[in-house]
Amino acid sequence: MPEIITGLKLSEGIGFGSIFISKRTDIEASDREIDADQIEEEISAYKESIQEAHIQLRKLRENVGEHLDEDSAAIFDAHIMMLDDPGFNEHIINSINNFNNAEKAIRLAGEVYITKFESLDSEYMKARALDVKDICMRLVANVQGVQLTDLTHVDEPVVVVADELTPSASAQLDSKYIKGIITAAGGMTSHSAIIARSLNIPAISGVPDILSKVTHGEDIIIDGFEGDIVLSPTEVEMAAYSEKQKAQEEREEKLKDLIGKETKTLDGINIGLYANIKGPEDLNDVSSNDAEGIGLYRTEFLYMNRMNLPSEEEQFEAYKAVLSDMDDKPVIIRTLDIGGDKELSYLNLPKESNPFLGERSIRFLLKNEEIFKTQLRALIRASEHGNLKVMFPMVTTIDEFNRAKALLIEEKEKYEAEIGKELSEIAAGIMVETPSAAMISDQLAKHVDFFSIGSNDLIQYTMAADRLNEQVSDLYQTYHPSVLGLIKKVIDSGRNNNKWVGICGEMACDHKSIALLTGFGIDELSVSPKKILGIREYISEIKKTDMEQLSESVLSCDSAEDVLYLIEEHLNLT
Amino acid sequence: MPEIITGLKLSEGIGFGSIFISKRTDIEASDREIDADQIEEEISAYKESIQEAHIQLRKLRENVGEHLDEDSAAIFDAHIMMLDDPGFNEHIINSINNFNNAEKAIRLAGEVYITKFESLDSEYMKARALDVKDICMRLVANVQGVQLTDLTHVDEPVVVVADELTPSASAQLDSKYIKGIITAAGGMTSHSAIIARSLNIPAISGVPDILSKVTHGEDIIIDGFEGDIVLSPTEVEMAAYSEKQKAQEEREEKLKDLIGKETKTLDGINIGLYANIKGPEDLNDVSSNDAEGIGLYRTEFLYMNRMNLPSEEEQFEAYKAVLSDMDDKPVIIRTLDIGGDKELSYLNLPKESNPFLGERSIRFLLKNEEIFKTQLRALIRASEHGNLKVMFPMVTTIDEFNRAKALLIEEKEKYEAEIGKELSEIAAGIMVETPSAAMISDQLAKHVDFFSIGSNDLIQYTMAADRLNEQVSDLYQTYHPSVLGLIKKVIDSGRNNNKWVGICGEMACDHKSIALLTGFGIDELSVSPKKILGIREYISEIKKTDMEQLSESVLSCDSAEDVLYLIEEHLNLT
Repeated sequence: MPEIITGLKLSEGIGFGSIFISKRTDIEASDREIDADQIEEEISAYKESIQEAHIQLRKLRENVGEHLDEDSAAIFDAHIMMLDDPGFNEHIINSINNFNNAEKAIRLAGEVYITKFESLDSEYMKARALDVKDICMRLVANVQGVQLTDLTHVDEPVVVVADELTPSASAQLDSKYIKGIITAAGGMTSHSAIIARSLNIPAISGVPDILSKVTHGEDIIIDGFEGDIVLSPTEVEMAAYSEKQKAQEEREEKLKDLIGKETKTLDGINIGLYANIKGPEDLNDVSSNDAEGIGLYRTEFLYMNRMNLPSEEEQFEAYKAVLSDMDDKPVIIRTLDIGGDKELSYLNLPKESNPFLGERSIRFLLKNEEIFKTQLRALIRASEHGNLKVMFPMVTTIDEFNRAKALLIEEKEKYEAEIGKELSEIAAGIMVETPSAAMISDQLAKHVDFFSIGSNDLIQYTMAADRLNEQVSDLYQTYHPSVLGLIKKVIDSGRNNNKWVGICGEMACDHKSIALLTGFGIDELSVSPKKILGIREYISEIKKTDMEQLSESVLSCDSAEDVLYLIEEHLNLT
Repeated sequence: MPEIITGLKLSEGIGFGSIFISKRTDIEASDREIDADQIEEEISAYKESIQEAHIQLRKLRENVGEHLDEDSAAIFDAHIMMLDDPGFNEHIINSINNFNNAEKAIRLAGEVYITKFESLDSEYMKARALDVKDICMRLVANVQGVQLTDLTHVDEPVVVVADELTPSASAQLDSKYIKGIITAAGGMTSHSAIIARSLNIPAISGVPDILSKVTHGEDIIIDGFEGDIVLSPTEVEMAAYSEKQKAQEEREEKLKDLIGKETKTLDGINIGLYANIKGPEDLNDVSSNDAEGIGLYRTEFLYMNRMNLPSEEEQFEAYKAVLSDMDDKPVIIRTLDIGGDKELSYLNLPKESNPFLGERSIRFLLKNEEIFKTQLRALIRASEHGNLKVMFPMVTTIDEFNRAKALLIEEKEKYEAEIGKELSEIAAGIMVETPSAAMISDQLAKHVDFFSIGSNDLIQYTMAADRLNEQVSDLYQTYHPSVLGLIKKVIDSGRNNNKWVGICGEMACDHKSIALLTGFGIDELSVSPKKILGIREYISEIKKTDMEQLSESVLSCDSAEDVLYLIEEHLNLT
């Protein structure tokens, strides 16, 4: 008898596969003294664990390198090197010879190395300590015969079920075999939800007891359109969902007719339809979905899943790859946006009580000028290869923008002096993500070249509701009149000052909010590449003048429900 | 040679005393096996530690009971009971007889009790576990001869120096002997800063290395007017600061002439001048400073420093005491405002990643209706004894207000049915603390009876800067045009809908912001009682029409600096 569980829809699509349970692994080494006649046995258990680890890490490295970027893959090289470290091996063998069991010997050796690395005053060596911890956990797991979670070695269609996926686990997702993601917690704007949507993997969350309901390896269907999870599906259900999936595929095929067409409303207003990317690896999707530009290049992925900061050269190569691929189409590259829910462990930043209200994004960059300047230099050098616009995230005051822009100009002039020629001007804009920036957008518009509204953060601050906290998810209201009032203010400020205004949060994807934004007079939407053609189709079916009427009436509504009711009535969705 | 260190001014005033270093105590019990001939010695060390603890706790209890409320004192009764628990004592003596040293024996016995209490499914027993931890730490400290921090046993003038004061340590502050507070961290709106200002104790923070610079017991002068700390002051300095202190006292004496006078601008506009209180213990200050009402009764102090929720009866008594003491003057009582930086340990609420953006205040109350209803019932019963207005904190949507008000009406009708008579209507208003509430204040004004702007939180959300995080304190800008724009919007919405608007954050205390708020048309300021007469004097010296001009020009400023410059120029402060 199949059971249907309904959760929160995070990413659309239908997926079939076997259940892959991904548990946060807490491996504990057992402490045991052994007898002399057990020494040989423990040494061979240890040696086997090393061999297994070699195989596992090589496979991980290959898979990650194939599907994602080389930098993410490089982390596994460091792990493989550690396995071959003669000092480390000798330490463990000696320890077993001194009557410790293999697990304890691994733990003790690990502790020696970790202490040594951590005591050195070097970010790099501290990051190495983390590697040693990882390696030791893997070896102990191998001795115990326990499987560590690893999404890259999956080689058949699976639906991943987990309490929550960490950003680094999310980075391993690959739509070839991962056919769905079900998490107990995590909202619409969690890291894994965003990546799932960008990879077109169906995802559902908000099912707190999911791990107690499923069995690893059993069949499952996930319907991200409805938020439905079908456990132990019958053949009839398999057939019905297959049909639904097929209909969806046909619709997607038909959308391809829109490739090469302009994005224009029924009454002839152009709206730019750009793509959000996290690196050159997304460029295929960008061109196959006919994006008119890059509206948001999230450069933080260059900085993640590694042990140290990316060099200017590495950054330059990545930015150049995107800029030259896009020819003269606009490419908006956002400077490093860390903090909040995105950490870089190798920077060892102090823990904050409220990281979303802390030293994140541009705040971090302005206090860490060397990191900022390296990125700016890479951007400036890459600007010769395309149509670059630089975007500063999380700006709260005009002073922050002016200081960031001054650094950009300073670095540009320095570079121009070096190469002995002048480069074209680089447009500099900001993300409007704080209520403060929205409130003073009229003043800001006199300084910046463009605005891009980051709706996810703007909603979270306006409603004072952490977008990742389930407890307050009912208050994270995209359609609340307060949020819409601030968005309208930003768009008005842009128009009054002849600066274009885009939007690159989740709001840019939803038909109801696209209708509103069109009415407000938005100039550009930046979305996950795979969403582009569907949105182009939708925009071609609405009139701006019609939506202007709608957008005027929503601001005096009492609540998000009232706004949604008005929109649905206006769009004849009721 | 005296050294002067300048920090962040948190509370005005000049204080002289000896340095009292308050370190966060991390006592670790040593683990040691003892010989048979040491058993007697360890048992007597243990017995002495118990006797000492008895003396310490009795003194703590007396002092706290004398200066603060009985509920805070009651927590120590529970500790004293534990000391006399025969099972606990037996456990420890047996353990020492089994060759454990006294410290280890205390730790082990504590662990047995803590495990037992924690395993019981009762909030009360879980809170008891915390008591056992406290007691065991005290006993181990006594065995080690280490002094636990305790601010209540101070009996000579001291200036407390600490990394940071916890809310519960702050609750022990008493202006009789505590002549100043210096902390390494903590901003203007930290708990200890707020309490310091309300008790008129000078306070300075933002001196990260202060603990490494001072010696316990040495003389120190703290000047909260300038933010100056004088280490090892000379006699000349002592005299100079004494004179400054005396001049200040004379000024305060002169202000008493304003008692009984109205609070009115030069051009005859009345502004209500109310007091912020944390309970009946502040009523003396309220009447001696001639407050025109209570603008903010912070009821959370009734819930803090105890092991369980206060009963309806306890609450009723506290509310009644304040209401009857104030006669027919308005008393605005705010419903429980926990979460954010204020925890109630006995509720065992889940840890949040960003508590300031989490389930706090009214969000908590609406999800915990029984707690809310108990408070509402106590308020309704107390309303017969004075002029009560109920205020809901942290409202973000109209729906939240409507749900809270519906509960108030429901409980009132229930109580009226019980007593067989109708009570007068109880006005219900909200604190405007989120950008959302400010943005929709025009709609909200049609539902509420009044607004009170909570500037501290409103600034933190508008600027997306945690008000307790030093790293972003430069972005916590009271005078930023975005913050002022939202405040003006709220005041305008109030006036357009005939609802009065007060303000009860830190902004209500500062002359520059009072000038602006007067220009915006604020109806009421609620401040710490001791600030009232000074503000009455200031308001009597300014003209509303004059400030209206000023308040119009600040909103188009680019920055907080520009706003301050305009104000200072306008007030001829430059």
